[in-house]
Amino acid sequence: MKIVECVPNYSISEDVEGIKKIVQPFIDTDGVELVNVEPDTSYNRTVVTAIGEPQAVKSAMVQSCKIASEVIDMREHRGEHKRMGATDVVPFIPIQDMTIEETIALSEECAKEIYELTNIPVFLYNLSAKREQCKKLPDIRKGEFEGMKEKLQDSYWKPDFGSEVHPTAGVTAVGCRPLLVAYNIDLQTNDRKVASAIARMIRYSNGGYRCIQAGPASLEDHVQVTMNVTDYTMTSVYRVYETVKMEAKRFGVDVCGSEFIGLVNMDCLKDIAAYYLCLPSKDDVTLSMDEVIDVVVKNLQVHGFSKEKVIEYYVK
Amino acid sequence: MKIVECVPNYSISEDVEGIKKIVQPFIDTDGVELVNVEPDTSYNRTVVTAIGEPQAVKSAMVQSCKIASEVIDMREHRGEHKRMGATDVVPFIPIQDMTIEETIALSEECAKEIYELTNIPVFLYNLSAKREQCKKLPDIRKGEFEGMKEKLQDSYWKPDFGSEVHPTAGVTAVGCRPLLVAYNIDLQTNDRKVASAIARMIRYSNGGYRCIQAGPASLEDHVQVTMNVTDYTMTSVYRVYETVKMEAKRFGVDVCGSEFIGLVNMDCLKDIAAYYLCLPSKDDVTLSMDEVIDVVVKNLQVHGFSKEKVIEYYVK
Repeated sequence: MKIVECVPNYSISEDVEGIKKIVQPFIDTDGVELVNVEPDTSYNRTVVTAIGEPQAVKSAMVQSCKIASEVIDMREHRGEHKRMGATDVVPFIPIQDMTIEETIALSEECAKEIYELTNIPVFLYNLSAKREQCKKLPDIRKGEFEGMKEKLQDSYWKPDFGSEVHPTAGVTAVGCRPLLVAYNIDLQTNDRKVASAIARMIRYSNGGYRCIQAGPASLEDHVQVTMNVTDYTMTSVYRVYETVKMEAKRFGVDVCGSEFIGLVNMDCLKDIAAYYLCLPSKDDVTLSMDEVIDVVVKNLQVHGFSKEKVIEYYVK
Repeated sequence: MKIVECVPNYSISEDVEGIKKIVQPFIDTDGVELVNVEPDTSYNRTVVTAIGEPQAVKSAMVQSCKIASEVIDMREHRGEHKRMGATDVVPFIPIQDMTIEETIALSEECAKEIYELTNIPVFLYNLSAKREQCKKLPDIRKGEFEGMKEKLQDSYWKPDFGSEVHPTAGVTAVGCRPLLVAYNIDLQTNDRKVASAIARMIRYSNGGYRCIQAGPASLEDHVQVTMNVTDYTMTSVYRVYETVKMEAKRFGVDVCGSEFIGLVNMDCLKDIAAYYLCLPSKDDVTLSMDEVIDVVVKNLQVHGFSKEKVIEYYVK
């Protein structure tokens, strides 16, 4: 049975009624499970996770994007995280019995239907990108909502669907990406420079780990190193956590917590648990899901975690 | 004043008289300083470091290679480290007032002169490589001395100079490379599998740090993670050391020492010292050379180190 995950990001966080409307299609559509809705007021965005049968997930996604364009007005949006649209980005991730190619095709259908229904211009990004410059989301997003009108006048930045920025909903990116782990580490300081310095030390672009993209983020009462682990089977999450702890020492700063954004799979959690259990490999971990979660939460000081954030909890 | 470093590796370690003869040209030639001769019996190789005026270093190198071809018989050579020739590899490194391009040109002259004087076939490797397959030394070396005769019959592996393997001196690689740090970490175990596992965790090819090439090595009474830090300004040496310590814990193994092979520069040492002194950057380190060395030696448990291994000690 084919299963796809979809993790759209919406530029909204405090309007509870608005969020309810936006996620309703994922609740109403058969064959789709709404797994998680994670509003973040500092970032002023909400990350939604849905999982299910590919065509059903796609249809719900198109409807949700339409509703978001009605609920959100980007002209009034402020927040920590860079963004360019009401529905900022729509990643599709193959979970079970799906190839990358099938997932790319699904993302293309979704992009086309979003444009046809809403008039929002859409870029195909990541593995679905048709052009080199569209592979990386930050490159597309550069200039943010406020700069999109000017940016799209350059033919180099012509969207794959549409051409004119939607006046209130901006621009959207849709694409297939491999399963990645979105993971943030909390530092017990308000000094954003410390988070920046540590992010540089661990991310690939500055000499760090191969599969780490990282940057600083300022929350209400502390800073974070916020990161994507693009392939946890190569760059383990525990290794990054321990390296951040090590680097933080230099600044006299403690690591005081961490969090997973969106879903994570058991294979990744077992890989983390194996290290703290002093087992040679994740294949040696024979604990139950609950026990593995306990080990991970305790050792990485994870907050806001439960089995509802584990993919295998939904895929039976 | 132009300064180049040359760090040839010879497949010899116990024949003290033979080594003396091989390094003699670096002692006899004006404008060249013989900085270090480091025989390693486990590897059964000797790493020589010379520094000085480019043409002088090159001439001495050619003569030394000729002598090595007379002293060493590869048909009788055994050792831990992969090798393909009596003079196995000749890296030239720009140190002062020299561009990469000038250093590549020097390496090409050297390769040509070695072949003309000795009939040893020479590959141009690393930054001097003319073909993709010759960029990486391990690819050229694959098959080792014993397999070179067959390998060179394939036109894909035609050397840049010569074509027939030298019957006793094998094959040599010559090339320009950027300043790198050759660094080994000692593990208090004889279990080579532990060194292999840790090497995989830290090296780029398996998801580790961007500028780390690493592998296992078995010495007489323990194993090592042996590595090249190809750009210490991106991937700091202290970070790798601390990560190896962290990974070793999982196996219940202690890190019991480390060593620099060949020369290292003050900038790299200051970068290490800054971390242990809890300073934000290497630019904040105001200690003397001796004091910096003390900090590094103590914190990384470095053995066999002194200011004679620091480039700045020779470049006044």
